[in-house]
Amino acid sequence: MDSTAFSNVETRSNDSPNRVAIVGASGYGGLQSIRLLRDHPFFKVTFLGGQRSIGRRWNELCPFLTLLENPIIEKPDLEKISAEADFVILSLPNGLASQMVPKLLDMNVRVIDLSADYRYRSLNQWKKIYVRESCLNNRLDAKLCEEAVYGLSEWNGSRIIQARLVSSPGCFPTASLLPLLPFLKQGLIENDGLIVDAKTGTSGGGRSPKENMLHSEASESISPYGVLGHRHTSEIEQQATEVAGQEINLQFTPHLVPMVRGLLATVYGRLRDPGITADDCMTVLDTFYRNHPNVGILPVGTYPSTKWVRQTNKALLSVQVDSRTGQVVLMCAIDNLVKGQAGQAIQNLNLMAGLPQETGLPLVCYYP
Amino acid sequence: MDSTAFSNVETRSNDSPNRVAIVGASGYGGLQSIRLLRDHPFFKVTFLGGQRSIGRRWNELCPFLTLLENPIIEKPDLEKISAEADFVILSLPNGLASQMVPKLLDMNVRVIDLSADYRYRSLNQWKKIYVRESCLNNRLDAKLCEEAVYGLSEWNGSRIIQARLVSSPGCFPTASLLPLLPFLKQGLIENDGLIVDAKTGTSGGGRSPKENMLHSEASESISPYGVLGHRHTSEIEQQATEVAGQEINLQFTPHLVPMVRGLLATVYGRLRDPGITADDCMTVLDTFYRNHPNVGILPVGTYPSTKWVRQTNKALLSVQVDSRTGQVVLMCAIDNLVKGQAGQAIQNLNLMAGLPQETGLPLVCYYP
Amino acid sequence: MDSTAFSNVETRSNDSPNRVAIVGASGYGGLQSIRLLRDHPFFKVTFLGGQRSIGRRWNELCPFLTLLENPIIEKPDLEKISAEADFVILSLPNGLASQMVPKLLDMNVRVIDLSADYRYRSLNQWKKIYVRESCLNNRLDAKLCEEAVYGLSEWNGSRIIQARLVSSPGCFPTASLLPLLPFLKQGLIENDGLIVDAKTGTSGGGRSPKENMLHSEASESISPYGVLGHRHTSEIEQQATEVAGQEINLQFTPHLVPMVRGLLATVYGRLRDPGITADDCMTVLDTFYRNHPNVGILPVGTYPSTKWVRQTNKALLSVQVDSRTGQVVLMCAIDNLVKGQAGQAIQNLNLMAGLPQETGLPLVCYYP
Amino acid sequence: MDSTAFSNVETRSNDSPNRVAIVGASGYGGLQSIRLLRDHPFFKVTFLGGQRSIGRRWNELCPFLTLLENPIIEKPDLEKISAEADFVILSLPNGLASQMVPKLLDMNVRVIDLSADYRYRSLNQWKKIYVRESCLNNRLDAKLCEEAVYGLSEWNGSRIIQARLVSSPGCFPTASLLPLLPFLKQGLIENDGLIVDAKTGTSGGGRSPKENMLHSEASESISPYGVLGHRHTSEIEQQATEVAGQEINLQFTPHLVPMVRGLLATVYGRLRDPGITADDCMTVLDTFYRNHPNVGILPVGTYPSTKWVRQTNKALLSVQVDSRTGQVVLMCAIDNLVKGQAGQAIQNLNLMAGLPQETGLPLVCYYP
Repeated sequence: MDSTAFSNVETRSNDSPNRVAIVGASGYGGLQSIRLLRDHPFFKVTFLGGQRSIGRRWNELCPFLTLLENPIIEKPDLEKISAEADFVILSLPNGLASQMVPKLLDMNVRVIDLSADYRYRSLNQWKKIYVRESCLNNRLDAKLCEEAVYGLSEWNGSRIIQARLVSSPGCFPTASLLPLLPFLKQGLIENDGLIVDAKTGTSGGGRSPKENMLHSEASESISPYGVLGHRHTSEIEQQATEVAGQEINLQFTPHLVPMVRGLLATVYGRLRDPGITADDCMTVLDTFYRNHPNVGILPVGTYPSTKWVRQTNKALLSVQVDSRTGQVVLMCAIDNLVKGQAGQAIQNLNLMAGLPQETGLPLVCYYP
Repeated sequence: MDSTAFSNVETRSNDSPNRVAIVGASGYGGLQSIRLLRDHPFFKVTFLGGQRSIGRRWNELCPFLTLLENPIIEKPDLEKISAEADFVILSLPNGLASQMVPKLLDMNVRVIDLSADYRYRSLNQWKKIYVRESCLNNRLDAKLCEEAVYGLSEWNGSRIIQARLVSSPGCFPTASLLPLLPFLKQGLIENDGLIVDAKTGTSGGGRSPKENMLHSEASESISPYGVLGHRHTSEIEQQATEVAGQEINLQFTPHLVPMVRGLLATVYGRLRDPGITADDCMTVLDTFYRNHPNVGILPVGTYPSTKWVRQTNKALLSVQVDSRTGQVVLMCAIDNLVKGQAGQAIQNLNLMAGLPQETGLPLVCYYP
Repeated sequence: MDSTAFSNVETRSNDSPNRVAIVGASGYGGLQSIRLLRDHPFFKVTFLGGQRSIGRRWNELCPFLTLLENPIIEKPDLEKISAEADFVILSLPNGLASQMVPKLLDMNVRVIDLSADYRYRSLNQWKKIYVRESCLNNRLDAKLCEEAVYGLSEWNGSRIIQARLVSSPGCFPTASLLPLLPFLKQGLIENDGLIVDAKTGTSGGGRSPKENMLHSEASESISPYGVLGHRHTSEIEQQATEVAGQEINLQFTPHLVPMVRGLLATVYGRLRDPGITADDCMTVLDTFYRNHPNVGILPVGTYPSTKWVRQTNKALLSVQVDSRTGQVVLMCAIDNLVKGQAGQAIQNLNLMAGLPQETGLPLVCYYP
Repeated sequence: MDSTAFSNVETRSNDSPNRVAIVGASGYGGLQSIRLLRDHPFFKVTFLGGQRSIGRRWNELCPFLTLLENPIIEKPDLEKISAEADFVILSLPNGLASQMVPKLLDMNVRVIDLSADYRYRSLNQWKKIYVRESCLNNRLDAKLCEEAVYGLSEWNGSRIIQARLVSSPGCFPTASLLPLLPFLKQGLIENDGLIVDAKTGTSGGGRSPKENMLHSEASESISPYGVLGHRHTSEIEQQATEVAGQEINLQFTPHLVPMVRGLLATVYGRLRDPGITADDCMTVLDTFYRNHPNVGILPVGTYPSTKWVRQTNKALLSVQVDSRTGQVVLMCAIDNLVKGQAGQAIQNLNLMAGLPQETGLPLVCYYP
């Protein structure tokens, strides 16, 4: 946790580097990044890289998100990117970013990666978890894995400011860690027996067509998946372990919910001190996130709805304590594509550019 | 229209042919057919043919629709089908049925085809409309196109009873034609200026993954598609023309609605006699469908909701007349996968087997 | 748990009592009961009691669920009910059933109550939890609270067969207890630290209009509610305690999911013996529910979707074990209005009438 | 139609009147207005009036839309409003605005009314259509009915700039009229035989709980309603008649679609000149709306999805021509609560304040 003045830095002057390339433009990560940067007061998108749509005009592909310049989707040529951009957001399938990042950094482009490629400090651990991807992509960038900053903005802000390479976390780790870390940091909850029961909207499955993500299949239904050994478990554990200073193993169960956007994490833990109240816990959260406008703490007894953060970069947290069982229940609602993906990437971009972290990011939903 | 006693035929004896093969089992058409036949008092499914899932056990593929015998999905070997089945339901992409049907008929298997292959009396017209499919599949079965009976059960029942080959219509033609045909038959509405504004659920798009059918894309949205020259326009026109005895051209606009099942057709026409009331029109519908338990006529002023027919083989019709404009508004709600597909196929199967047409078909929804 | 032969009893003869009254007919509990009994081979609905709709014809009120006799909704006159029915299903707001049940039993009508009025063995505990309802309704029926059988059909079957009064449980307790009880009964999991994270569709909120249940509010959103002291917690604990033979306190968190029907309970517990595998656990479930066709056990690694049990009386269970954490994860999907309400009521009615418990109940969904 | 320079007016100085009162704050119209004005560069909300929530703090009521000042909901005291606001947005049930508007205007508060009270030039016509409301509210403001400007921003801009009282139209007339009026104005389509088949999301039904708007009822279903004599028919006809210069009667059929937001109008008419192509028609629309950034014209063959305008003040139009039938099909997608309600109100407010009409209004969606 890092509450230095990184959100108070003055806006950079107009000649500062503010050109952003986006690679993987037509997936949901790319689309959200473009949408958010389109209204951003400081950055401008100068390069759109794709794959299947190379050579096509943007506005034909996306009549719902027209761009004034109507750019052409380009092959992600690294030389060209380095000539045209100061920053690049990579929104690619796992494994691919690692083939571009070393060169981009060599050419002084600062990188925000939305994939899992740099989420582990150890390349070997990545290879153990992303087996198929590690077979397809030869990686020799163990040092970059160590260098990369984990882009949970509220916790690693001061390191993100300086970073060449930020590995921006996805929706599950963000929603799980934001409410949990303050309690681990303070040693308020037991390190074992932690349970994260997470519920995600369908856009978390990406834009590539899959049978189980068809409207007919995913609508009017909820189901658990990846109950054992989901890839995000180890990622959450790595961050939790670092903050707790002790090995954390937890139970993580994702569920698919019939809504497009939104992610709710319900986190269960046992309080060390049975006398701690929900109000005390709220104060803990409040203290940690006081200077972080992208995190809101709800009053005790008010529980977050994902609708309340839809299409915003806000995380809404709530906490309840059951004195009968000694359990604390932590709840966190985010928009999986904004605070859970592209919005947090822009938040990190803001930090890297020395801007207040919330610059240009929507924080209030359109209800209902 | 045909109100003979085909729904009053006695149930056939137990040694009657009642074995049904289903080819294309794991698509929505196949799934619904299997589900409906599973509870049918007369038929039993004896063969499941597939493509990608050949060799696999059914219950692994579909844990939500387990079958006692847990059959293996087989390659659709026509000899084997003819040995094991009296009837076959083909639920295949357009063009493929035509490659199987001639042989199946030669081997005395009676066929119900859910594709468009035999929906036109003229093979040439089919080729004009299904251009890509006609390139991929060489067809020499013009005579079968003439022989095939269009399986709109309420209208062609007496011919279906005798048919070797029934081309069972899809959801759009069924919902458009059921309310419209009585008025065309009676000459009550003008032949020109007819408009069908249709709204379909997403399961109409089938089970093959497509980007625009992802939950994220199709949910929380409505949009028109195929506004000009949708393939079903000519099919609807062909049937309307036959019943009217005069060339009918109409405007057909489908819309994709964010629900899994259901199809609503709102049909607009001009009454020939401005003195006709909504009650008169209701009587027209009532008279035509009196002996057809799969069609229900709502009182004037009650409008059908697709939820009311969800997972049933019922078509609910309603009619309203606006004396200011001289327009009649016909409304028809069906379940696109049941009365709009597999249910009507079973209804036709019932007729072919000499059973009352509604045998074994659900007619009342589970609300809500 | 009770695996006696109650599902093998022969169907009663035609002159057996089989007349059923339904009070609270136009709520969801009433609607589902009517729908299920409409197709039931043994029972017939002979009385429909209501409140706001007294005097109106059923088919006008519910054009989606027409009844041949088109009965009139009547005031729930107890004398009349006793004259016209052998059984009554009460589907009323909490507190009201207690005002009718004593008299109905005196008049030899056997009662299935869908409300919470008889879910606690102790009237005093009911009064503590249903404070407002106990102020509105004077109750002196403590003995009936003791007599009433808790209608979790698979567990109390032999007592239900004989019962005059069955208190049929709701969706949350049913889905929580079915997977949990076998493990408590066998002493396989720790009695403390149990967590039930439950997810319900919106029809669980009933048919009375409420702002938070509007489509605009409930759609495209998930949120927890009643995180502390939800009324069903104590009900689940009472049953768990009885089966475990030891006081059980557990954490129960319900969530509202944007789907009409379905309830998923994800239950977390710690195994006593760390060597027990998921396969062992599946065997435990399999053994308990072998003779219970309304419960299905999925293979290890297959997780239940609520869509798989939609509009059926089936509960689908799955279990997974995480050897890293020592946690067992139990999952149960039901349809909240069928196995979670009216379907289980009919299942109990079957038992009370000496029929196989699954008689007339749908067990396979229409997918998708 | 009015393409004068009203969108080019310079931003008013800081001491210009820019204080806005909102009466009916917690309904959807109020909520959207507050949300939109919260980010507006020129206006500030200075008064929140309500009814049931009088005396409560805003942020408690709406934790999803917190306001810095956390104002108290007040009784709509007209004196106080006139002291604290330059403009008032009234978002009240029909009939109530008429009881406030005369006094507000007398006190020099300029009014934007979201109800139907001033949508007809003739008070008598209003009384004929809003019978119940006219019984409950005595009205003597026939002159104000004549004075009020119909707030279809793109068509009445120059009059709105000067207006004391703007009657801001709702979603159905806006989506029906925007594509239709240019063709009527130019005399390109027949005046009779016009059909508007409209599809609305559920938030159009407002925030007051109603059974048919429950998620359980409205989800997974589409149905027509108000097929005959819907109140908006005459409102659409009045505007169409004024622009066409001839009496227009049209057929208007609304449908309820299972989505929260969005409205799609599909409008059918017959072209006078059969030689006119879809491209010609697109040019007609393009010419009319060239200087109106809140209206976008899609290329021929691209059809609007309501998702593309979700939570924006954009209307997306498309046109297709079927030369076989001589029909033109006009399509218009809007967000029913923004361009169809509160957004258009702010657009009118911009005009009244001399600002470019699109000031502070979102025009691009967050996809998906």
